[in-house]
Formats: sequence, C-alpha cells, structure tokens
Amino acid sequence: MPSTMGETLTVSVFGQSHSEAIGCVISGLPSGIKIDMDAVKEFMGRRAPGQGAWTTPRKEADLPEIVSGLDAEGLTCGTPLACIIRNTNTRSQDYKNIARVPRPGHSDFCAWTKWGSAHDIRGGGHFSGRLTAPLCFAGAIALQILSEQGVSIAAHLSCIGDAADTRFAAFENTPESRELLAQQIATIQRHVTTLSVIDASASEAMLGEIDKARRAKDSVGGEIECVATGLPAGIGSPMFDGMENILARNIFGIPGVKGIEFGRGFEMAHMHGSENNDPFMVEDGACVPATNNAGGILGGITTGAPLLFRIAMKPTSSISRPQQSVDLAHMEPAELEVHGRHDPCIVTRAVPVVEAVTALSLLDAWLSYPADTLFQKK
Amino acid sequence: MPSTMGETLTVSVFGQSHSEAIGCVISGLPSGIKIDMDAVKEFMGRRAPGQGAWTTPRKEADLPEIVSGLDAEGLTCGTPLACIIRNTNTRSQDYKNIARVPRPGHSDFCAWTKWGSAHDIRGGGHFSGRLTAPLCFAGAIALQILSEQGVSIAAHLSCIGDAADTRFAAFENTPESRELLAQQIATIQRHVTTLSVIDASASEAMLGEIDKARRAKDSVGGEIECVATGLPAGIGSPMFDGMENILARNIFGIPGVKGIEFGRGFEMAHMHGSENNDPFMVEDGACVPATNNAGGILGGITTGAPLLFRIAMKPTSSISRPQQSVDLAHMEPAELEVHGRHDPCIVTRAVPVVEAVTALSLLDAWLSYPADTLFQKK
Amino acid sequence: MPSTMGETLTVSVFGQSHSEAIGCVISGLPSGIKIDMDAVKEFMGRRAPGQGAWTTPRKEADLPEIVSGLDAEGLTCGTPLACIIRNTNTRSQDYKNIARVPRPGHSDFCAWTKWGSAHDIRGGGHFSGRLTAPLCFAGAIALQILSEQGVSIAAHLSCIGDAADTRFAAFENTPESRELLAQQIATIQRHVTTLSVIDASASEAMLGEIDKARRAKDSVGGEIECVATGLPAGIGSPMFDGMENILARNIFGIPGVKGIEFGRGFEMAHMHGSENNDPFMVEDGACVPATNNAGGILGGITTGAPLLFRIAMKPTSSISRPQQSVDLAHMEPAELEVHGRHDPCIVTRAVPVVEAVTALSLLDAWLSYPADTLFQKK
Amino acid sequence: MPSTMGETLTVSVFGQSHSEAIGCVISGLPSGIKIDMDAVKEFMGRRAPGQGAWTTPRKEADLPEIVSGLDAEGLTCGTPLACIIRNTNTRSQDYKNIARVPRPGHSDFCAWTKWGSAHDIRGGGHFSGRLTAPLCFAGAIALQILSEQGVSIAAHLSCIGDAADTRFAAFENTPESRELLAQQIATIQRHVTTLSVIDASASEAMLGEIDKARRAKDSVGGEIECVATGLPAGIGSPMFDGMENILARNIFGIPGVKGIEFGRGFEMAHMHGSENNDPFMVEDGACVPATNNAGGILGGITTGAPLLFRIAMKPTSSISRPQQSVDLAHMEPAELEVHGRHDPCIVTRAVPVVEAVTALSLLDAWLSYPADTLFQKK
Repeated sequence: MPSTMGETLTVSVFGQSHSEAIGCVISGLPSGIKIDMDAVKEFMGRRAPGQGAWTTPRKEADLPEIVSGLDAEGLTCGTPLACIIRNTNTRSQDYKNIARVPRPGHSDFCAWTKWGSAHDIRGGGHFSGRLTAPLCFAGAIALQILSEQGVSIAAHLSCIGDAADTRFAAFENTPESRELLAQQIATIQRHVTTLSVIDASASEAMLGEIDKARRAKDSVGGEIECVATGLPAGIGSPMFDGMENILARNIFGIPGVKGIEFGRGFEMAHMHGSENNDPFMVEDGACVPATNNAGGILGGITTGAPLLFRIAMKPTSSISRPQQSVDLAHMEPAELEVHGRHDPCIVTRAVPVVEAVTALSLLDAWLSYPADTLFQKK
Repeated sequence: MPSTMGETLTVSVFGQSHSEAIGCVISGLPSGIKIDMDAVKEFMGRRAPGQGAWTTPRKEADLPEIVSGLDAEGLTCGTPLACIIRNTNTRSQDYKNIARVPRPGHSDFCAWTKWGSAHDIRGGGHFSGRLTAPLCFAGAIALQILSEQGVSIAAHLSCIGDAADTRFAAFENTPESRELLAQQIATIQRHVTTLSVIDASASEAMLGEIDKARRAKDSVGGEIECVATGLPAGIGSPMFDGMENILARNIFGIPGVKGIEFGRGFEMAHMHGSENNDPFMVEDGACVPATNNAGGILGGITTGAPLLFRIAMKPTSSISRPQQSVDLAHMEPAELEVHGRHDPCIVTRAVPVVEAVTALSLLDAWLSYPADTLFQKK
Repeated sequence: MPSTMGETLTVSVFGQSHSEAIGCVISGLPSGIKIDMDAVKEFMGRRAPGQGAWTTPRKEADLPEIVSGLDAEGLTCGTPLACIIRNTNTRSQDYKNIARVPRPGHSDFCAWTKWGSAHDIRGGGHFSGRLTAPLCFAGAIALQILSEQGVSIAAHLSCIGDAADTRFAAFENTPESRELLAQQIATIQRHVTTLSVIDASASEAMLGEIDKARRAKDSVGGEIECVATGLPAGIGSPMFDGMENILARNIFGIPGVKGIEFGRGFEMAHMHGSENNDPFMVEDGACVPATNNAGGILGGITTGAPLLFRIAMKPTSSISRPQQSVDLAHMEPAELEVHGRHDPCIVTRAVPVVEAVTALSLLDAWLSYPADTLFQKK
Repeated sequence: MPSTMGETLTVSVFGQSHSEAIGCVISGLPSGIKIDMDAVKEFMGRRAPGQGAWTTPRKEADLPEIVSGLDAEGLTCGTPLACIIRNTNTRSQDYKNIARVPRPGHSDFCAWTKWGSAHDIRGGGHFSGRLTAPLCFAGAIALQILSEQGVSIAAHLSCIGDAADTRFAAFENTPESRELLAQQIATIQRHVTTLSVIDASASEAMLGEIDKARRAKDSVGGEIECVATGLPAGIGSPMFDGMENILARNIFGIPGVKGIEFGRGFEMAHMHGSENNDPFMVEDGACVPATNNAGGILGGITTGAPLLFRIAMKPTSSISRPQQSVDLAHMEPAELEVHGRHDPCIVTRAVPVVEAVTALSLLDAWLSYPADTLFQKK
C-alpha cells in the first residue's frame, strides 16, 4: 500500500506540503496505552523547522490533533489512531516557476512522468520532508511503548560534510561498552535544541560546514548513526522480513537517504571472517555475542546486542544557485533558480525522524513476533 | 508474508538446505510467455557451487522442475508457477556438533531463540545461501521478460577484500557514457565461468585475496555493483514503495548483505548540492538527467538514467578455525570448529543473485505501474 | 491491515462514533480526476440520518473535508486522499449504563474481551454504523470514475421484514432484459429521499413494517439487492481474489450484514445443472452469456453480464425494550434498557453503503487487472 | 496475492488439474508441531474422488509429499512448509473440443478473456476442484493444532436438492444444546466413507437426488452447514478483518460456492431485534450468550458461542447433455457436449474442504490475535 509502512503496526501517511493538512493513521497499537502528549510534542519539536541558525526560517506550529483512536479517558482503544497536522504559513507562489521546469535532484520530473500534470508540485507535494512530521508523531508513540519495555533508541549526526562525530561504542557488547554507550546516548539527548552529537566539539565543525554551504548558496550532505539497546534476541523473520529488510525499506522512506549499512557494513567487504564473526559468551546465565560487528542482527533476527546502523543522506536538492533544467511544456533547455526557504542541510532535522522510523519498525516486528510462538512447542 | 518478495509479481521461497527440496512459487507473471529454459539453467549455473577453485567442492545438479503454471504448450498460463529443486548430496553429519553450539556470525543462535529446538539447523536451514537458487530461477524469468522490453541488468564484483574492479560508467548519462556502460556490461557477461569483473586484471587480484583467506582457514568479504539500463522514467511509488525501498528490502534478503547505497551513496555525505544535483537536458526530444549521481532514482521513482547501486557483503561466517561459542544445552563456554565444505568467499556466487533480485524487484514495480495510470487523465 | 479494504485501490477507515472525527485515507486513485463534490454530498446524503420518519432523529452535517490528495486545481494528484468528517451532536451520557453491561446483539462484549476496558464503548465506537459515512465518501468517488467507464451500480431494498420489492431483471442477459434493468435502476434513483425500491408500492408496506417495529420498541431486518452493469468480462482473479471473495469480504464490513449470495445463490442448492448453467451466445460479434444465473461471475471472474448479489441484514440490535445481560464488573445478571436514538431499521440507510462498497471493490479489482496483462502475449 | 489465503498463517495454492503437480506453501505455522500424517491422509481421503457410487470414477493417489518445513525429527521448524501432490491419471484428450468452445457454467470463457489463449483449459486448469486437495492438506494440519486447543470443526450436508438433513443444534448456547451439538458432530464423523449427514436417513434421500440427476445426464446443487466449537471470545478484527469477512473471502475460494450466511443469516431479514438479539448470561463465572442467532460472531469478533455458518453450492457445471455455446475462434454458435468423468454433485466432496478452509481461517485469525494484546494494559 502506497505511503504505508508496517505489517502488524502500520502507519499510513497522507498529505502534501501545501495541502490542507498532513497526517497519518496508525493501526495495530496495543490498547490501554496513555500517550504522553508532552513527550510527543517535545519529540516532534526536534525535527521542526526554524529552531536554529542552521535551519529554514519557515516556522510552523506543527501541532498534531488526534481525531480518533482514543477512548473517553484518552487511552488507546485498539482501533485506528488518526492524527492531522494543519498546514499553515505556506507560500505557494515560490513554486510557480518550477511547475514546468523540474528542479535538479528533486522528484518533480519523476512525479510528472508518473502522474502527469495533475501531480502536486507545490513544496515537493507528497515528497516533501514535511511528511516526516507525522512519522515523528507516530514514532514518538512507538518510542514510548518501547521505552516501557526497556528499549532505548538514539541517533546522532555521525558526519556533516567532512566534520565527523565520535561513533557509538556499539561494536563491543560487554558491560563496560554498554555502560559507555548509555552515557553517549544520554549525552546526545541533552542536545535537543542544538545539533545531535555525542562529542560536543563536533558540533562546531558541523555548523561550520553548514554555514560554508549556506554562504555559497549551496547545501551539504551527511550521515546519521542510530542504535537501539535493550531489545530481546529473536525479533525479525527470515529472508525478506528480517530487521535489515524492514529497517532498510522504511528508512529509505525518509527523503534524502541514499545508503544504509548495518554493523560494520561496507567495512566488512575488507574484513576476514575471523575478524568479523562475533564470538558468543555466557553472561548472567545467557548466551550473548561478545562483540557486535553484526550490528545486532544475524539472519535478519536480533541477537540481543545493540542494533546498529548508519545512513547516508544527500545534500539538500533545493539550492538557490542557477541550475540547468528543461522546460517540460516546450521541451527546451531552461535555467532554473530555486527560491523559497530551504535548509542548507536537511541531515540535522532528520535525526529524530530516523529514531521515529526505527522505533516503528522495531515495534512492528516485535508485535509480529508472538504469532510465531503462539501454540509453539519448545 | 514470510520469505516472500513482491507486491504484484510475488516470489514465495521455501525449503531448507537439507530438506527434501527447495523451490518457489511465482505469482503475477504475464501469461503467454515462453520461458527459455536453457537460458534459465545457464543463469542458474552462474551461482551453482563447484565451478572453480574458489568455490565449495559440493556439487549439485540444481535442476529446477516446473510443476505448475505452464499450459500444454509450455507457455505461462497466468496462474502460479511453482518450481522445485531437489536437494541431493547433503551431508548432515557435518552439522552434528553445532546443533547446540551456535556458529559465530550465523543465524543459528537467533533461530534457536525464535523457534526453539525444532528449528532446522542442518546446513543453515532456511537461512542457507542455497535458498538463493530458487531466487535465481525466478530472476532468470524476470530477466527474460525485461530483456524483451529493452532492459539490461548486470552486476560485477566491485571488490573482494582490497582487490577492486573498475566501476560502472554510470555516473554520467550521455550517449558516450551509455555506450561505454554497454561495453562494460558485455565484458562482464563473457566471464560467466570465471569471476564477474569488468577489468579482467582485477580477477587475478581477487583470486589472490580468496586464496589467501582459504589458506589461512579464513574467509573474505566484498562488494557487488549492479546496474539496470533501458528502464523508462516513472517506475516506483512514493515513501515506502520507491525503488530504493523495494530494492533494499529485497537485496537484504540475500544472505550476507550488510549495506547498500544508491548512486553516489555514502559519498554524498561529503558532497555539496551543486555537485550532486543532476541537471536535466533535452535529448531526442525528451527530458533526461545529464549526470546520474542519483543512481537513476529520485523520490523513489526511476528517472530513466541507469539505475545504479552497490552492496557490501560480509566474509563467509563458516570458517574452519576454532571459534569461541556457547553450549546452549549447558549454557557454558564451548570452542567450536566448523567442518564441512564452505566457500572462503560467498561474494563471487552472489553476483547473479543480485541480478535476479534486481530483475524481480524492477518487474514487480513495473507491473504495479499501470494501475496508477488506468483511467488517468493527463 | 485492520479497517482497510482493497489491494490496489485501498480505503483505510478511522474513527469512532464519539471521537473527534471519523474519516478515511484513499490510496491508489488515478491522477487527474476532478471530483464532483456536489455528487459526493448528494450520495452521502442518502445514508445520512434524520431524513424521514423511519430514521433516527440524530442530525449530522456529515460534511466531508478533503485534507490531502488534490493539487492546486482540485484534481486528484496520485497520492493519498484523506478525508475527515467531524463528529458533532454526540450525547455520550446515553451510553453510561452500558459501559459494563454489554448490549445484546452488539459488539460491546467482544470488544471488551479483545481490548479490555479501554475499548471505546460510546456509540458503538469503531463498530458504529456511522463509520459507513467515510465509505460512502470514498464510494461516491469510485462511482464517478466507474460511471465514466460506462459502469452503473444500483441497490434497492429487496425486503424489509415480510414486505418485498420486485427483484432486478438480471437473471436474463438479453437486450430486452438489460433495457428493463436500466429502467428499474432509473426508477430507484428517483427515490433518493424516500425508500430505495423498484416498485413504489412496496415502499408503503415496508414503512408499515418499520412503523410496527418502532411502536413495539423493537426493530426489523431486511435484504438489499445490488447490481452492476457495464463491466467488461475478465475482472477478478482466481481462488481467493475473485469478485465473490472481494465483494463478500468487503460487504461483511458493513455493520449488520449476515449473509450474501451471488446470482441465484441459495436457490442453486435446489437446481439442476441444466437449469443453472448459462448458455453462451453471440451478440454483436462477441460471446456473452444468454442467461445470468451466475450473477455475472464465473470462477471469480466477471462474465460481462450484470453482476448481481443479495445480502441479508439483521434487525437493529439497539432496541429500547428491557433485555437480559451481564454486569461485567461484578459478573452477575443485569437487566438492560438501551436508551438513545436508534433506527428501528438500519437496512434503509445501508442501501447507498452497499453501492459504495461495491463500487470500491469493483474499481479495486479493475485497477489490479492491467498488471496481469502488461507484456502479455495473446 | 493471487491464490493465497491468510494474513499471519498463509496458504499459497499452486497447480492446475493437468500440470505436473499441485500443492501449497504454508507460512506462519508454529514451530515444534509433530504433524500426524495418518490423520492428514485420512482427512484428505474424505474429499478424494472415486469412493462411492455418487462420485467420479477418476481415482487418484493424492499422496502429499512434504518437501520443506520440517526439521530432522519431522517437527515443524518455523519456516515455510511446502507440499506437492503429483497429478496422475489425467486424460487431456477429454478436453480437446472445449478448447475453443467455453463450457456453460465454467470459468473457461472468463479465463480466456483474462489471460488469452495461453490459459490452461485442461480439466479446468487452476479453477479445478482438484485444487482443493492442497487446501485439505493444509486444513488437516490446522485442524490438528486447533484440536489441541480444544476447538472442534465439523460440517455436514444440510441439503442436496430437496433432500434435507437435520440442522446443527447451534442456535442455543446452553450446556444441554452444546452436549447435543457434540453428539451431532460425533455422528457425522462416523460417516466418513458415506455422505456427511447428521441424520442417517437423510443420506438415502440425498443419494436419490444425486442418482436422479446422474440418470438424467444432469447434476444437482446443495448446501453445507459448518460449526466450530471451543473457540475463545475475542478472535477477529473490526470492519474488513472480522471472522465473517475472513471466512466469506476464503470459503468463496472453494469452487461452486455461491452464497454464505452466518447464524440465522437470511432468516434475520424477517426477524425482529427482540427475537434475534442473543441475551447474555453468567455461566461458570463467565459472560456467555444464552442463544446464538448471531452464529458466534458479533462485530466480526467471536463471542465464544459456536461459530455457525451455511453455504450454498451450485450444481456441477459439467453435464453431458448438449449445451449451447460459442466457438471463440470463429465467434459463431456451437453446440457442446462435455465428456469425461464428472461428479453429478460436487457438494458431497466439498464437506471436508469447508472444514479445512474454516480451520485455516480461524487459526489465521487466532494467530493474529496476540499482536493486539502484546504490551496491552487491561
């Protein structure tokens, strides 16, 4: 189903940048859950525009309205939870000259090919980064449910251009490494209103990269690293429904993502099995991997070690430099200048989105898990 | 649905390494297609074991038997096409000592956690690389159908350990670059019984890496690059059903894949928008991207430029060196030596599997395309 | 996916009788369609309460607000179309005493068993007949698209209690029978603000049955017959995705439906093959069934003859007579009187809902059709 | 997915009447289950042809071969279980003259319209009643798993033509009615090699109807009633995933089914709410419906009372009388005589198929149940 993620816990996203509203319908939530709306709004605030010098000046309230799915006491009632977020502060006239001249790096041309002239070009339409707001809404609820089960999810900017942050201490899986990882996670979460980094000094270099791009009427890309701790072993299904499959499918739903790797990822191409294999050890009477090159997933199924992945995001496509394009109405070359308000770096605001999509993906796989085990004989 | 890929064209894979048979059921194939079984067998032969010094000595006939889905004339008849491949030449005794001592880097421990002691440990069970044989069968059919539409798909080893091949000439999208790319593809396809490389001299270095690993009772990882040419613009759907989403979900279904990137991928993290955006130009009266950093996909939808991605594969988990693990029956440390026949590098045999899964993913998305456009008003 | 119908054209319904709003998200609509909102509202008006002496006095505006899925010109843009309908004029206090005493014939007890005390009992929650309003909204759009392809869909009350209407002239498939059927359809559609019947005299007897039930503080059931004309042959897929499967699954989503039969249906149990088989004839150079006992479907696939089915609906569960139930809090017998506003017969308002669900089901199957035929060789 | 039933427990059916084999892939079975193959074969024997004077003389071994999904000990291992049944004793020449002259009442014409001349006409192809053999295989396993949870499923012939059997004692839900129902079920199950009836004397009248049809080179229809006891309350989901929706969708997958009703079904159209509503009572400290007009389902969710439904099946389409049809090659009228071996009544052999599909549907819904309740707060 288009614009829908999940099998058991599903999120259907609707809306365009300049439609009346955007929103989502969440199905499959457990019943009886009290949603902490303050936490939801705080989480959504982390992706909202207009917070710092490095983001677009467009300001939005982005207040989610839950229109169904709660009982009279405000608890989830087991049936679909729908949320809408009104679009305000939109300036459609900014998009007039791009209606027939597709922006390089954008979906405009592809959407025109697929849907004809009726596709909604304004603000990127359904492809706009704004559509990640409902994902953050849904993800904030999933994070709350996972948190009650002892699961933490955290992401940080592992690089912006050539400015890099410390990586998560997640390639080991010892009590010491897990303690360090917990500290790193706590560190990031204090930086809600600044850049999401482990090493505060990385923030300055990153802001430098962003500022350099802005001044050049340009943009810059980056990477995000994400970790989930506290997951039990055994979540995920073989072949096409493993955690790598589910996460990859959903994470590529975030605009601008162009690569993903789990654990050591591309580094593994250069490794030997004896280096890469994670030996098992006994800890507190249980079998656990002692190292975690696998990123917490083997055969698509969680190992119980921290689930770890890293993604690459492209530089913002909207830049105000003149670019070469084509006037589709006359099928002739046309130079294009994209006006309007655009982040020189979308990676900073994508950090909570990655956490949200990860939470939804993990909760979905977890909720699909017991069906395998009902009536199971050990 | 577990172990099933696709929405409109679906492939359900069944079997374990040591079950009676493995196979697949393909639904949604167009009717009236004459399957070229010689081409199917030749294609499947490219992943079969036992072909060169660098692969496992286990030999299998791997003859696919089509048991349904063809009419009396041997044409596809529109209903599910089922294929089985008998398992022969299996040596279950090789897996006796690992039944309760999970192999590092393997799915054994996760499967045991998920399904209990009844999971089929023999030969990796359903997680075995052997399950890619039915994928190649199905993929060979998809490749034939796509080929009749002018689409070519080709993959090669972009590296084994530190030995690298030339990359595809696919970051440009000019008549010249496409001609060079076509030559590269033709070059690879001549190397069916040797390593799949563009630059024949890379083959020697790669074989050296593999031989070094084997002699050290070790294994080595690698990368595969894949390209599809001749696709029309407009295939794929937004958010979670784009070509990146579909391909990533399915490609991670190939055992050992730990990373994927599209177009410039991770390199984009270090690029500026002005470098990365692909300008549009007019060619033969049509709008086409002049460069192809995007890898042929924008907003999840094909641009008409070559679709390009690269994946990372881990070194084979099965190595014959002693490794540290845990005896799950007594929950105490145990040293494990994995015997049996194993490829020191699984990447070489995965090349046609990547092509197969790519063909199936593209054909599935393409077959889903007209529903969007039926009754559409341009 | 819970509360979602369709494969290619999907409708996800959300909301509860007393939540902030109800609504739906429609995915897979063709792009470039201009929705005739006057027609949509007129169609929705046919199921709205408060229109005649025979329906509940609760009045609702039921104005649908489209919040996404249209472009700047108001045309469908290919991405999800979301619609919300605000709930107003709700009186939750009517439901206080049933919170722990389940109403006989209602879903209360089952919902409590499934979701616990957090399920939304108010007004039937997500099980309320009110949730058919978004289905009518979506169905009105589907009817418009089908109408442009020459397809007409019409339903009528075939009986209320023991008062019966004339049946559709759809068991024949001759030019004469089709002309008569078209006249019948035209007749029904003139009765939008009264009962939907073919034979106006049946209306009086039906109103008598309803009035008798109301005066007895009781309710009464009925049947609805539905026909679709103008469909091409060849729509539907074998086994579990045939038109009978799809329609049955979706029609049972309308609250109160307890039976469905296609063509001669239950009568066929008493027929011989020589009576029931529809012979084929040549008409205007095409092969068509001369009779239509099959109801326009063979092997799950449309034959081109009128698609015909009939459904049974139960008497309204909410009656104001005292009924025997159980106080779930103390698990002891309790007598229950259901107050509030309730239709003594829900069948009358279900007629447009049946048309809506039929239109959505047919359009979904039709939009799934071309994928079978793309690249097909005849 | 075509020819596939189920969401969590799925069965994909493949094969044609005259292909090499037919079979199915079952996904989502719990692991660790020991399949009782003797019981499976005995159950499959109930639908096999050639058992009595009233069925087709075609004899088949119909031996299912399980080719995957079991571990070394023969227990289900959690991954897809595939089964094939070889086709033998086929006589394709019987179908020669129908290749271009569609049989009235058959899918031939529709399949030709949908798939063109490549569709497999032989023996009805994928539409053949023979495809119910894999459903019986899968259903026999589901019945075994449900039986271990205390669930019994039984169906009987409620009528053949005008010869009727006693109905199930399932409209009450008292200890006495349940005891009587259990006796009825036990009675039917003793009639495995004769007709499946409650009242043995009905068998004679039914055989008379069948014999009369056969002697007239004709066929006759009938009804099947099915009941499931021992189900907990709370299984099923609202709107389109309720038990009526799921059962109806799947039951219409059995060739020849043209109607279904739950509980009082079509009778409800003539009832009042005060008659039809099932009051609740306290029994053994639990809330239970005292009567069962609803057929064990309210709001799509099980009530805990016996789940009851009845279906109508058409008379066999294949009759050896001359019938009027059309030569599709020349598009001119043609008279057709269908030769070959055909049951004058397919209803008798459909009884176990109804039980099988019911078991699979219920187990699927049950396995989907815990995901709703995981992490649920009561």
